Amino acid sequence: MTESQSESPSEPESTPSRRALIGWGGAGLALGAAAAGGAVAMTRTGDDIAPTAAEAGAAVDFHGAHQAGIATPVQDRLHFAAFDVTTDDRAAFVRMLKDWTLAARRMTAGAAVGEGAYGGLAEAPPDDTGEALGLKPSRLTLTIGFGPSLFEKFDLADRRPEALVDLPQFAGDNLDRNRSGGDLCVQACADDPQVAVHAIRNLARIGFGKVVIKWSQLGFGKTSSTTPDAQTPRNLMGFKDGTRNIAGTETGRLKKFVWVDEKDGPGWMTGGSYLVARRIRMHIETWDRTSLQEQEDIFGRDKGEGAPVGKAKERDEPFLKAMLPDAHVRLAHPESNHGATILRRGYSFTDGTDGLGRLDAGLFFLAYQRDVREGFIRIQRNLALDSLNEYIQHVGSAVFAVPPGVRDQDDWWGSTLFSGEA
Amino acid sequence: MTESQSESPSEPESTPSRRALIGWGGAGLALGAAAAGGAVAMTRTGDDIAPTAAEAGAAVDFHGAHQAGIATPVQDRLHFAAFDVTTDDRAAFVRMLKDWTLAARRMTAGAAVGEGAYGGLAEAPPDDTGEALGLKPSRLTLTIGFGPSLFEKFDLADRRPEALVDLPQFAGDNLDRNRSGGDLCVQACADDPQVAVHAIRNLARIGFGKVVIKWSQLGFGKTSSTTPDAQTPRNLMGFKDGTRNIAGTETGRLKKFVWVDEKDGPGWMTGGSYLVARRIRMHIETWDRTSLQEQEDIFGRDKGEGAPVGKAKERDEPFLKAMLPDAHVRLAHPESNHGATILRRGYSFTDGTDGLGRLDAGLFFLAYQRDVREGFIRIQRNLALDSLNEYIQHVGSAVFAVPPGVRDQDDWWGSTLFSGEA
Ligand code: HEM
Ligand code: HEM
Repeated sequence: MTESQSESPSEPESTPSRRALIGWGGAGLALGAAAAGGAVAMTRTGDDIAPTAAEAGAAVDFHGAHQAGIATPVQDRLHFAAFDVTTDDRAAFVRMLKDWTLAARRMTAGAAVGEGAYGGLAEAPPDDTGEALGLKPSRLTLTIGFGPSLFEKFDLADRRPEALVDLPQFAGDNLDRNRSGGDLCVQACADDPQVAVHAIRNLARIGFGKVVIKWSQLGFGKTSSTTPDAQTPRNLMGFKDGTRNIAGTETGRLKKFVWVDEKDGPGWMTGGSYLVARRIRMHIETWDRTSLQEQEDIFGRDKGEGAPVGKAKERDEPFLKAMLPDAHVRLAHPESNHGATILRRGYSFTDGTDGLGRLDAGLFFLAYQRDVREGFIRIQRNLALDSLNEYIQHVGSAVFAVPPGVRDQDDWWGSTLFSGEA
Repeated sequence: MTESQSESPSEPESTPSRRALIGWGGAGLALGAAAAGGAVAMTRTGDDIAPTAAEAGAAVDFHGAHQAGIATPVQDRLHFAAFDVTTDDRAAFVRMLKDWTLAARRMTAGAAVGEGAYGGLAEAPPDDTGEALGLKPSRLTLTIGFGPSLFEKFDLADRRPEALVDLPQFAGDNLDRNRSGGDLCVQACADDPQVAVHAIRNLARIGFGKVVIKWSQLGFGKTSSTTPDAQTPRNLMGFKDGTRNIAGTETGRLKKFVWVDEKDGPGWMTGGSYLVARRIRMHIETWDRTSLQEQEDIFGRDKGEGAPVGKAKERDEPFLKAMLPDAHVRLAHPESNHGATILRRGYSFTDGTDGLGRLDAGLFFLAYQRDVREGFIRIQRNLALDSLNEYIQHVGSAVFAVPPGVRDQDDWWGSTLFSGEA
């Protein structure tokens, strides 16, 4: 099924970009409006992203030196999935990565999966599951990552990056194994959740027999700004989140803190990054009964404007010594962490109730960095002791090596890790 | 805390509508853009709704003969919560309903909860949890309903409507008690999920000590159209859903099938409706491996256009005899159900995975009707045997009496049920 896809000659760039009804014989194709929306692609040249094109319907270019979905201006919604590999056939796994790449290329351009391999064949399952038909590309990005456990398979042990360490146990961690780890992950971000869910589901479908979803997470509200001029979003604690983050336009800081450099090694990771994912539950009900003063003390910023203690404006430089010693911002700030800096890209979640009448809600924290040891680990060692911990708990954890971008039509996800050896 | 709110003299209509920072002393109030968005209210006069005003930022009028959120054009996102009552103090419960009404009136207008009762008091918890600050009203509607179990409390036994029957067990039901029932419910619909989540959370907070959330459901994609000219959304099976639904503009059919009439009784329900909520799990992975022909046979419509079997266009009149005897549309159609007709208002959900590598996804089905016996029950007796059942399972169930609208500034949710006796 998926193999016929990879043999298909035509690509989205050579066909009009739309969620075409290819494979559904005789169905109407009145998709003018959606197709028009899909044609507007965002300018993405290396690190440099034009946030002006960040209108909801546009497509983000899938190709580049880095994968999209890291420095890309944060989209509104997330569907994140961790997969476990169920095959020990390396060639089959590599074929799946190629099939995934084809599908990802099409979906991010706003097209349906498949090239008409089942054209008109009513006896076969459709190539695409269909629920995103007629929807715009919605700035969909798909970002793949490889977990430590993948390197125990397929003879990859000596290719595991040193910077991809297993995370240590931090004070207060209460990790659920069913929400942690994974051989690989795909982060789907889009302005329309149906588009993000559709993408993960179709990848899972293509991967049938080779991978299985281990856990997944839906995020409904972005909690980080990576566009300096946009209004900073608020997290579920009501505070602006992402004020001091790396912006997608800050080429220098991206280079310094996010992208793996040639001299960092291993070579196959050059242009890639490392992703830490943490499911952080918030004790919402307790928080909501906490005084405004205490809430502001905990972060070291005020709630309305988001200004650091003693300052007037959100963007004013924090003066750490004015904050309580265990304030979140004080302990998270680069000054308290030998300069450690990460790119945060988290989302709020609400997954119903916990059986005790409390919302199961919080922050699905995602952070990209050049080296996990110099990034997340350094900061979290500090933060595991901050005063925010009375109101939160880390309940899920995973770490992934995120390979460089897919360069062109012939390239595929993971080519630098697997090529020449498959 | 909430009582001081109900004594407050000023209301959103007398103040500029915005998510004001009232209660957060000294915080900046630079919310011009949001305030402007909030000022655009939708025209809602009884049954008649102007879908032209359905732009994402607008506010839907909270007041009217019927509650908003039923005939209102379907918003993009849902947060639904069922609550159980934990107090036996009737006066306290009624006070909570009044406080909820005040908060709902403000939030649907795009304002924050509270009137400055804690103005400037840093020692007190803020009146509003804050995460919706700066967001537009996003067409938020809040709709309250009373479950059968509520009528066993507060001496209400003789006020329970006859039409509010306990649902029978249907063939194939596999109901989870932790996702079923509830003394009352609030349906929050909005174009921004953060706005819907914020609303439920703040109501839960105001209700602290009187009610507790029993279960809740987030819906990320609407599966029904209640605006005849809009593009019909697709459900997670990839089919257009809501083609033959009651539109919010069809005054005649709303009167006939949705709104409780004076002569139906009981008097307190006049202008109200009955809501059935069903969590329906889809076996997505099995469905995705089913042939196109079988998928189309199951519904009795084609997948691309959504046309009934043998017809060319989505809106063409279905010819039932051309469909298989157990096709969903054939069995759901009024002709097969003595004319029974309901207003569907469901949402897709994806709640992670089920521990077996399968997406826990499906349809959170919501239907409004004038009488549950003549509506949902009649149709579901038929549908419990349709061919779709191989791919779905009903896992949650609840039914609620939805009282009439809040008429004006002095009225409150449940006034017709409780007034004169509280
Ligand atoms: C539920 C958990 C968390 C919440 C609610 C939260 C919230 C916030 C807020 C409100 C700010 C201030 C605004 C800003 O500059 O973005 C902030 C800053 C920051 N947070 Fe967190 N955060 C959480 C967890 C974490 C974790 C796990 C890390 C990394 C280990 C982290 C790292 C940072 C950093 C690096 C900053 C910027 C500090 C600065 O440069 O001033 N946060 N966080
Ligand atoms: C996961 C479960 C379900 C799915 C995927 C589903 C899907 C659909 C689809 C695709 C249509 C055709 C388009 C349309 O007219 O809206 C339809 C029609 C309909 N469905 Fe469902 N449905 C489900 C459950 C239910 C349930 C539980 C009921 C009520 C008991 C119901 C009642 C109806 C009705 C009344 C129609 C319109 C029939 C007509 O007038 O032609 N559906 N459904």
